[in-house]
Amino acid sequence: MNKSVFYHAGCPVCISAEQDILNLIGESNVEVVNFDTDKSRIAEAEELGVKSVPALVTPNGNVLHINFGASMEDVKK
Amino acid sequence: MNKSVFYHAGCPVCISAEQDILNLIGESNVEVVNFDTDKSRIAEAEELGVKSVPALVTPNGNVLHINFGASMEDVKK
Repeated sequence: MNKSVFYHAGCPVCISAEQDILNLIGESNVEVVNFDTDKSRIAEAEELGVKSVPALVTPNGNVLHINFGASMEDVKK
Repeated sequence: MNKSVFYHAGCPVCISAEQDILNLIGESNVEVVNFDTDKSRIAEAEELGVKSVPALVTPNGNVLHINFGASMEDVKK
C-alpha cells in the first residue's frame, strides 16, 4: 500500500489529530506535511483537492478533511 | 487497543469515507455505526462529542470529524 499523506498547519487541533492518525494508521504508513514549516507543499495539496487542514489524502487519492480547523486561504497568510 | 467507532449516516460521502477508514485502520479495529439504520446510537454519539458525520471516535476519546457531510440535526430528521 502506498503511503497516505497527512497535511496540517501546526495548529493545536492539527497536532492532536496528527497523533490520532499516526496511532491509528501507523507512523510508517503516513507522511506528515506541516505547512507551517513547509509552504512549498501547499500547491501540491491543493491540486490533490485539500480544502482545509488537517486533511488526510489516502493512497487511492481520496481527501478526508478532518475537523475544519483552518481554510487553505488562512494557511497561505 | 480498543476499537475506534465510525459514525455515519449512509450518505455517499459517508460510504466513501467508511471504505477509506476501514482500509487504513483495518476492519477489525473499527466499529461502524450507521444512523440511517440505527438511530438509537445518536444520543451516545452526541455525548462523545460527535457534531457532524462522518466522524471517527478514537480509542482515546478524540472525535475526528471527517469532511462536513451532514450535521447531527439533519441526521435526526
